[in-house]
Amino acid sequence: MNRSSFQPVSLTRVGDGAARSADDCVAREEPLAIELVGAGRDGSPVTKTVAITMATPGHARELAVGFLLGEGIVRGLDEVKAVFSEGPSDEEGQQHGVRVVLQTGAPVDWDRLQRNFYASSSCGVCGKTSLRALEMTGFEAVPAPAHPFPQELISTLPERLRAAQELFDRTGGVHGAGIFDWSGKVVTVREDVGRHNAVDKAVGALFLRRLWPLRDHALVVSGRASFELVQKAIAARIPLLVAVGAPSSLAVAAADEFGLCLVGFTKKSGYNVYTHPAHVGAEIAREVTA
Amino acid sequence: MNRSSFQPVSLTRVGDGAARSADDCVAREEPLAIELVGAGRDGSPVTKTVAITMATPGHARELAVGFLLGEGIVRGLDEVKAVFSEGPSDEEGQQHGVRVVLQTGAPVDWDRLQRNFYASSSCGVCGKTSLRALEMTGFEAVPAPAHPFPQELISTLPERLRAAQELFDRTGGVHGAGIFDWSGKVVTVREDVGRHNAVDKAVGALFLRRLWPLRDHALVVSGRASFELVQKAIAARIPLLVAVGAPSSLAVAAADEFGLCLVGFTKKSGYNVYTHPAHVGAEIAREVTA
Repeated sequence: MNRSSFQPVSLTRVGDGAARSADDCVAREEPLAIELVGAGRDGSPVTKTVAITMATPGHARELAVGFLLGEGIVRGLDEVKAVFSEGPSDEEGQQHGVRVVLQTGAPVDWDRLQRNFYASSSCGVCGKTSLRALEMTGFEAVPAPAHPFPQELISTLPERLRAAQELFDRTGGVHGAGIFDWSGKVVTVREDVGRHNAVDKAVGALFLRRLWPLRDHALVVSGRASFELVQKAIAARIPLLVAVGAPSSLAVAAADEFGLCLVGFTKKSGYNVYTHPAHVGAEIAREVTA
Repeated sequence: MNRSSFQPVSLTRVGDGAARSADDCVAREEPLAIELVGAGRDGSPVTKTVAITMATPGHARELAVGFLLGEGIVRGLDEVKAVFSEGPSDEEGQQHGVRVVLQTGAPVDWDRLQRNFYASSSCGVCGKTSLRALEMTGFEAVPAPAHPFPQELISTLPERLRAAQELFDRTGGVHGAGIFDWSGKVVTVREDVGRHNAVDKAVGALFLRRLWPLRDHALVVSGRASFELVQKAIAARIPLLVAVGAPSSLAVAAADEFGLCLVGFTKKSGYNVYTHPAHVGAEIAREVTA
């Protein structure tokens, strides 16, 4: 947690029939521009803003890299040359930005980026019109894990995530995303007012530590599982997504098609496995009728 | 609730050390294109896609109109000539769309729309780089209500909203947005996988019923209060936003500047008033030192 990720507020607390002054902290939310520098058609450098997202300050470089990975714009460690953060915003709320410079040889489909601009998104999903569009951008099925994730650990993942959420402790108002290894040990946890940003930061953090791709890791999210979070897990080559809340229809469809085990409504008492139950050892023996 | 807003899924339920097959429903999530038809510089009609959002099917016309209102693109009943829904998507997930046709005389700032494309958002916030940008698009402060909202009703609003959330009953996985009158009576409730969409649908529903602007109504949301939800309330001229969860820093700042009373962490036992406490009769008498 970064000190700039929250700020104090004065408020009026109403309860027990009385109103009184109180002080608390709220999570900060600020625009962040993600810029990409790559080679144009003639080889000369081109700079483009690929997204502006409303995010909690801190870990901006990780967020930018995670976003580009999730969109399929960056696909491997050797494609990124440098990542520059352009500093915190000023008092007037002027946006700050992160610039990701690609390696000279890294291919960029500027036309596709242009189309994405047309309907781009802070959430990274707009511009996808169907699962087919996801396939078209070159996403591949996630390899199955070498052995199943231990079934008894899954119920414990949300509380392991929650225990690492320092900004939530302060503000009660941020989403968390954690990456856990196959023994249930936390590898990294990130928080943000936007759940998509929290995932981008967590994935980007491991990329910047050169831990990539993330085979045999689980992504745990504090909220629901939308299509965009499933897409980000697939792009990170993660075979297991555990959500505290419910999945959407498109999240289930995409997880099914791309080899991701999607778990939802995860509580101490149990959980639902929507796709690829073998990844968590939850296959059900089918009765054979002769 | 619309039958196409959810779909059945088969899943594996793990609990009590056993895995068994189960059936449940998940909320549907689908791309929806919002198209605007208005007059170009030379007076001839121009059609532009202003957003593609991932939304739950149902109430798409309301969503489109609410989105345009929240963005400040549409400002009054007399500016909209017709709203056409282009039908449900096909099995391959082809996007469907809504086309909003403006009245002949309604002004459109196509240049601003173009800039918004550059960094537009399913969430309706990208492209805003600061509160200043919000001011620049011509948003005005919300008029103060004629008299305060009854303090004792506020704690009851989340359960009144929840009681009207039919899709949540089915899926456990959608956000709700409700508009309540000053007596605490529900006027409309809408649900969606995206909390911004739920608000757009609720506001758009009242616009299409020609109830506009919405002075002296409260907007109640099932989750947290981000900047974008505050912006949508301000655009709808709503003086009171009640959130079940926490607000962000920018939500508090925008609410303060634009005359919106922002309430968060709303429970039966009490709530926090972040801005304009007079709107809910929660001013605190200040001690006067002579």
